[in-house]
Amino acid sequence: MVDKKMDVITFGESMVLFNPDSKGPLRYIHTFTKALSGAESNVAIALARLEHKVGWFSKLGDDEFGRYIECFIRGEGVDISRVIKDEERSTGLLFKERFAHVNPNVYYYRRNSAASYLSPEDIDYEYIKNAKILHVTGITPALSESARETVTRVVDFAKENGVIFSFDPNIRLKLWSKEEAKPVILDLCKKADILFPGIDEAEMLLGIEDPREVIKTFHEMGPDIVALKLGKEGCMLSNRKEQHFVNGYTVKTMEDSVGAGDGFAAGFLSGMLRNKNLKECGEYANGVGAMATLVKGDVEGLPTYDQLLTFIDKKEYVDR
Amino acid sequence: MVDKKMDVITFGESMVLFNPDSKGPLRYIHTFTKALSGAESNVAIALARLEHKVGWFSKLGDDEFGRYIECFIRGEGVDISRVIKDEERSTGLLFKERFAHVNPNVYYYRRNSAASYLSPEDIDYEYIKNAKILHVTGITPALSESARETVTRVVDFAKENGVIFSFDPNIRLKLWSKEEAKPVILDLCKKADILFPGIDEAEMLLGIEDPREVIKTFHEMGPDIVALKLGKEGCMLSNRKEQHFVNGYTVKTMEDSVGAGDGFAAGFLSGMLRNKNLKECGEYANGVGAMATLVKGDVEGLPTYDQLLTFIDKKEYVDR
Amino acid sequence: MVDKKMDVITFGESMVLFNPDSKGPLRYIHTFTKALSGAESNVAIALARLEHKVGWFSKLGDDEFGRYIECFIRGEGVDISRVIKDEERSTGLLFKERFAHVNPNVYYYRRNSAASYLSPEDIDYEYIKNAKILHVTGITPALSESARETVTRVVDFAKENGVIFSFDPNIRLKLWSKEEAKPVILDLCKKADILFPGIDEAEMLLGIEDPREVIKTFHEMGPDIVALKLGKEGCMLSNRKEQHFVNGYTVKTMEDSVGAGDGFAAGFLSGMLRNKNLKECGEYANGVGAMATLVKGDVEGLPTYDQLLTFIDKKEYVDR
Amino acid sequence: MVDKKMDVITFGESMVLFNPDSKGPLRYIHTFTKALSGAESNVAIALARLEHKVGWFSKLGDDEFGRYIECFIRGEGVDISRVIKDEERSTGLLFKERFAHVNPNVYYYRRNSAASYLSPEDIDYEYIKNAKILHVTGITPALSESARETVTRVVDFAKENGVIFSFDPNIRLKLWSKEEAKPVILDLCKKADILFPGIDEAEMLLGIEDPREVIKTFHEMGPDIVALKLGKEGCMLSNRKEQHFVNGYTVKTMEDSVGAGDGFAAGFLSGMLRNKNLKECGEYANGVGAMATLVKGDVEGLPTYDQLLTFIDKKEYVDR
Amino acid sequence: MVDKKMDVITFGESMVLFNPDSKGPLRYIHTFTKALSGAESNVAIALARLEHKVGWFSKLGDDEFGRYIECFIRGEGVDISRVIKDEERSTGLLFKERFAHVNPNVYYYRRNSAASYLSPEDIDYEYIKNAKILHVTGITPALSESARETVTRVVDFAKENGVIFSFDPNIRLKLWSKEEAKPVILDLCKKADILFPGIDEAEMLLGIEDPREVIKTFHEMGPDIVALKLGKEGCMLSNRKEQHFVNGYTVKTMEDSVGAGDGFAAGFLSGMLRNKNLKECGEYANGVGAMATLVKGDVEGLPTYDQLLTFIDKKEYVDR
Amino acid sequence: MVDKKMDVITFGESMVLFNPDSKGPLRYIHTFTKALSGAESNVAIALARLEHKVGWFSKLGDDEFGRYIECFIRGEGVDISRVIKDEERSTGLLFKERFAHVNPNVYYYRRNSAASYLSPEDIDYEYIKNAKILHVTGITPALSESARETVTRVVDFAKENGVIFSFDPNIRLKLWSKEEAKPVILDLCKKADILFPGIDEAEMLLGIEDPREVIKTFHEMGPDIVALKLGKEGCMLSNRKEQHFVNGYTVKTMEDSVGAGDGFAAGFLSGMLRNKNLKECGEYANGVGAMATLVKGDVEGLPTYDQLLTFIDKKEYVDR
Repeated sequence: MVDKKMDVITFGESMVLFNPDSKGPLRYIHTFTKALSGAESNVAIALARLEHKVGWFSKLGDDEFGRYIECFIRGEGVDISRVIKDEERSTGLLFKERFAHVNPNVYYYRRNSAASYLSPEDIDYEYIKNAKILHVTGITPALSESARETVTRVVDFAKENGVIFSFDPNIRLKLWSKEEAKPVILDLCKKADILFPGIDEAEMLLGIEDPREVIKTFHEMGPDIVALKLGKEGCMLSNRKEQHFVNGYTVKTMEDSVGAGDGFAAGFLSGMLRNKNLKECGEYANGVGAMATLVKGDVEGLPTYDQLLTFIDKKEYVDR
Repeated sequence: MVDKKMDVITFGESMVLFNPDSKGPLRYIHTFTKALSGAESNVAIALARLEHKVGWFSKLGDDEFGRYIECFIRGEGVDISRVIKDEERSTGLLFKERFAHVNPNVYYYRRNSAASYLSPEDIDYEYIKNAKILHVTGITPALSESARETVTRVVDFAKENGVIFSFDPNIRLKLWSKEEAKPVILDLCKKADILFPGIDEAEMLLGIEDPREVIKTFHEMGPDIVALKLGKEGCMLSNRKEQHFVNGYTVKTMEDSVGAGDGFAAGFLSGMLRNKNLKECGEYANGVGAMATLVKGDVEGLPTYDQLLTFIDKKEYVDR
Repeated sequence: MVDKKMDVITFGESMVLFNPDSKGPLRYIHTFTKALSGAESNVAIALARLEHKVGWFSKLGDDEFGRYIECFIRGEGVDISRVIKDEERSTGLLFKERFAHVNPNVYYYRRNSAASYLSPEDIDYEYIKNAKILHVTGITPALSESARETVTRVVDFAKENGVIFSFDPNIRLKLWSKEEAKPVILDLCKKADILFPGIDEAEMLLGIEDPREVIKTFHEMGPDIVALKLGKEGCMLSNRKEQHFVNGYTVKTMEDSVGAGDGFAAGFLSGMLRNKNLKECGEYANGVGAMATLVKGDVEGLPTYDQLLTFIDKKEYVDR
Repeated sequence: MVDKKMDVITFGESMVLFNPDSKGPLRYIHTFTKALSGAESNVAIALARLEHKVGWFSKLGDDEFGRYIECFIRGEGVDISRVIKDEERSTGLLFKERFAHVNPNVYYYRRNSAASYLSPEDIDYEYIKNAKILHVTGITPALSESARETVTRVVDFAKENGVIFSFDPNIRLKLWSKEEAKPVILDLCKKADILFPGIDEAEMLLGIEDPREVIKTFHEMGPDIVALKLGKEGCMLSNRKEQHFVNGYTVKTMEDSVGAGDGFAAGFLSGMLRNKNLKECGEYANGVGAMATLVKGDVEGLPTYDQLLTFIDKKEYVDR
Repeated sequence: MVDKKMDVITFGESMVLFNPDSKGPLRYIHTFTKALSGAESNVAIALARLEHKVGWFSKLGDDEFGRYIECFIRGEGVDISRVIKDEERSTGLLFKERFAHVNPNVYYYRRNSAASYLSPEDIDYEYIKNAKILHVTGITPALSESARETVTRVVDFAKENGVIFSFDPNIRLKLWSKEEAKPVILDLCKKADILFPGIDEAEMLLGIEDPREVIKTFHEMGPDIVALKLGKEGCMLSNRKEQHFVNGYTVKTMEDSVGAGDGFAAGFLSGMLRNKNLKECGEYANGVGAMATLVKGDVEGLPTYDQLLTFIDKKEYVDR
Repeated sequence: MVDKKMDVITFGESMVLFNPDSKGPLRYIHTFTKALSGAESNVAIALARLEHKVGWFSKLGDDEFGRYIECFIRGEGVDISRVIKDEERSTGLLFKERFAHVNPNVYYYRRNSAASYLSPEDIDYEYIKNAKILHVTGITPALSESARETVTRVVDFAKENGVIFSFDPNIRLKLWSKEEAKPVILDLCKKADILFPGIDEAEMLLGIEDPREVIKTFHEMGPDIVALKLGKEGCMLSNRKEQHFVNGYTVKTMEDSVGAGDGFAAGFLSGMLRNKNLKECGEYANGVGAMATLVKGDVEGLPTYDQLLTFIDKKEYVDR
């Protein structure tokens, strides 16, 4: 890849996450523990831990929760020099509600958050130019009209300036309806150089269930690289020239499924930045994704490069 | 007083309060404990504990935080039969940030909360009719345009139907500007039968500092009873016929100043409902207000009637 | 069913439960968390959550633990207007000791508790008349001589006044011996209109193991409806006219087995109150019982009616 | 003093103490921390820490709470070889309720506890013989008839066998009435060789307020040594030959007043066992008593001999 | 066995263990809970709980952590009269880092700890003479040169004085290299009367994998009794005359594997002290070892003799 | 000042601090909370928060505690690019033991820590050149012989390269004796351009008590600027030309005195870097020092520049 100051730049809302101290309806929970949440900062932190130069930015409230997010992400070695402070709006929050038998509920307090006021004028376009790869998720255009415009502008600018555009659809139906989401996400899929759809998302977007068909259709739309996530099964990878199915991990002791997709994207990009072949990229992707789920929290389980290699080497670890 | 089903009805936003587990900037706080906050529900709970029949209502999110608020307030013996659930908006939250040397900061997550969508159509006017006293605070009209209208409509309806209107200005400059607040609050002061201004509020509203002048001016505006809060000094009471200064408590071991004003109003109203004379009403007001500050939390320190009498009797308790 | 003010009235001892913060012998446990425990209040809360009008009462100590129980149960929407306060005796307590490999130990501090002094004179018989169903468990007659007499008197009064008598044997050998328990429990079984025996209890009481035989024998004794609990297998239901076996749930992620039987009874009674057929009543019973075990605590996992229907619909939930 | 195996033997009920994690009514407290409480074990632990050979015993429930008490007290270096286990009754408990402005409330769960079944046949009289000093408090005879008899029998046996009898009246009106307590306590005062009354207790027992008169009257009754506790003022000591007033400590940072009297008795006895003069014994008594209040918990603040000497030497410590 | 004052004496470093309050990298852990750790004190406590007379000693820092260790171990009924205090060095510490998918990491802070300065002059040899059995582990010689010498001297002294020498190799490669460890451990194996090797250790020491060969080889070296641990499979026992394989337990709910080996040794020695036959000794060994893993912490799950017998009797317990 | 890349560079050991969850002897403390400690990183963080460009480095263990320190300090915006990892030694730790009546005890686990192996070869001398000011404390030369040499080499190099040398003696007698410390510290005082002695340290080093004499003597030794700390009284400042006494703050609600001296140095240097006059520098120094004590923890209370100016303006804050 071209030599640039930054390996990957990404942006999007990070929030303070409040985790209940035990399972069950929040009404009966007495104490909550503060943590960090945010798909794009998860990717950024994952990449920083894998020794890449990464930048992340967002608009944060000029409040203690915003300062917490800044300190946390900068502490992980991510460049946060382009973070913008909004003196009028607050930093977004989210509460998790955990159950033994179903997936966690999420309560968002992010409507009208600082990040949802992100607008094209907030962007330092020169900074974007400096990146080899721009990574964006489908959460950001769901935040607000201005956030959607910002995504469009930044993506177009990046592509015009030779920055590789990596896109994870990350469709969140709590933030917008299927009808609103579909055209926006499809438009971004078309522009993407690297695409990280989940198989369910692919079905929703394309109406196609068969992995090979999905990949073919996405290639026809635009992306040269498609990394299709198949859940525990693993992933299907294609770069027009070659295609691979890479087996996933059966994680018997999963602590927290959140962050797996972000880890997958980061693992894949790390492979690419290290000039690994497609299959190896997929192994990195599966590995980082699985490791993210082994520790509670979005980022706490993300591996260093050494830890990733050890893990990939010893698949039996997760089968205890 | 006339014989009615309910002694006091009040309404206004209650929120889930998150208390940090230690002092200092929230950025460094790991865990938070859930509690209840809300000026009007504080008054309602205080009155229920003093053995009166009280109703409180608000609009709550149809979520676990809303259910927590319902259970808590109903658990205290307050009638919550008129609470409205909003399926689209969330229950409001607030975070406290405590310091050893300055008053706590408050971070609100209540913009566009369910309660701020309270509107005149939400009200069961027959229910209001059933009350001897309607108690309102100046926080509710600060929440939104529709909340303001609701207050006007309910207050006017109550007055037309012979319900005594009790008003606590409770000016919160975090919610609206002095300029916005002043005319709205003054208008409600004029309509009030019983008024609970703080001396600072009086100065802001009237530009008058002298307690006797303040009381005189408020009487001229409308209220027959003015209970002017003078902080630790105590209070000055007037019912046009008689006027009393009642000494306050020097609480050396104050744990939490929040809720003192609400306790004051509840104590006073309890005295009135028990047909105590003006001075005794002031003693109840000072007593409940002081006791509210002796325990952390808005309502945890509120006394039963027996505890109040014991406390009033043994002023030395708080002077240890 | 006849139209009455209350759907179900129940009574019996509720206690403050202290849960250890980790597993293992209590001697090594540093902190304990306060919660609520009590078979009858579990049933009452379950029914209130399922939208029925329920009353519960007991004798509580005039102390903070008694007030906690009052606030909790009233907060859940149960009528507690007939609770009696005992100024001389304390509210009962219990401590749990949890292990990974065996069922929890229970340490009772309820001997001579306020509830064990419940006596026939404490009862507001007019209140009992107001109920469609009176629900009693076999724990109450085990508390004391006077509690036993109270049960007899209340049950007889209810039956004379056309109140349906629902009985859950709930034999606790920590409270009395098999010899003491058997005649008392059998006598109540005979009087019952609806009976909720467990298969083990049936064997102890009748010396019969075969479910069909058990049901036949109980019908001959008196009860028109027998809902026999078969553990994970499910339940066998009979109303003299029809008989059904309803499959249970395999809850792989059980958090707390306590409260399952109470949820079963509440689910069944809810079905009856909604005029569901026998089989549906059994499905409700199995559903509420299973859901009670999915969250730690006796009542924290009890569903609303909507949640129950969703759960019954998606049996796979519990099979994750 | 005569050479014997044990310096001091004492006996009486020790309980598991549950401390609320914050101040205020217990109803609102979520978590409690386990600790040890018991006047006689406090004295025993204080003496063990001051390097004396001490034995303590009681009757404990054969349960985890009893085992906790055993391990704790034995861990402190006290001989517990004569502890008796009761397989039928439970170990007693107590809950504290703390307030900022008044002394803590105490909720006992000790009625019918194992310790209240202590009876004369439980005693190993040979063991008593081995002690230089037998220390008893006025709590034990308040527990039950059989406990009272046990105290009488043990005290009489000790006196007949040349064991010095040290008595702390420790009148607890939560356990018995003034009328019940007075003759029993006075009888033990008469038998005592060393007496540790508080000035309020003296007034209750003798109807005398003047310290010098109190001491004179007690000497006439029997005790050769009277150590009269005057609260923060300090203490007045007399051994018929000499009389001293020893100044107390102004502890500005008192954490927990419980255990001060037990520390006082232990400090005094330690001085005697080290053959210090009367005034020094009083300084030790004041010192240990004050130090006990500097750390939360009954025994956590009790000093080693070195720490005591340092503390006595630097009175300014407590005046910060 | 010969009648002696003590059944077993053991010595070796005990440390304060800090347990993270949740799983994952320590960097993200906020709070840690204090506990006790130490192979030899585990054995001592296990034996004390099984009603044997046991002594344990080590060199501890003259600090609060040392005092914690003393109180804990003495509290369990172990004689600690020979513990030595080092005024210059600190008590050793260790931190655990727990993961869902791999065994815990351990961070030692024991280099130059007080215990590592244990030297032959510190020993009360008369005390050693008093024991029927001396139990030593291979951890102690790994601590330092002087600790190694101490082991040699004590072991030789014990053997000369008719004390049975029980040895658990307990090879910890975090403390020394395979090369350093092997000759020292082998030398102690040769001297041992009773030997508790794990099958992995046996392979490392002897280069032999077959259990029967391992046992034969060890017998040839010296030990009359070899109890070879085969993990979950169970153990192979031999006393030259007879040989038994004893099935292990499948513990589905293992909480903490640490302490299993110590429990095994203690169970075996308890059987011997009770004159049980070889097979029964193995059943006790397997039982205590399995029970140690059912509760978090090294010693919290160790059984009383009654609990052990119940457990052995009901193997199904652990198969829930 | 000359224009350079960095405003201040500092180096020295940072440790993980374990804070007990309550006061009293550590033996009785159950849980500890992790935090950061280190005089030089305190200064660096204080300066970063005051908007200066700061670098800090040390040698850390290649372990989770080292990674925690890195993340924390980098998160605060301090450049940590020159931190060195030691694969063989551990990161140092310290435990605090807090009392109500005396200053906290400190238990160090830093002997042979990674930082104590800091040596002259570890230094990037070009990096030092880039700083306007080099700040060093007297703790670093106390760590080890090689650390002492490193200090000498770095200080000499800095002075030769026109970097201002700022020195805080920070004499810790737990780390070395007065005899060892004195010549080393005095030598560094002589080399210092800016010196931050405490009045007690001055007395120890010079044998002089009078502040004016102290300042005169230090000036004669070398430093052009002497900022003499006088505790609560405030400070005495001198730059050969002018001399000022600046009043301190009476902090009635001090939470944690640790970090006050580091805040003082940072405040003073911040004033200098902003070209404030000597008196203003003193006001900043007093202000940051006082604010550091208002929140528990070394760095949690350190102000932003805005917060500092507000605080200085409203001295009454701290006198509540």
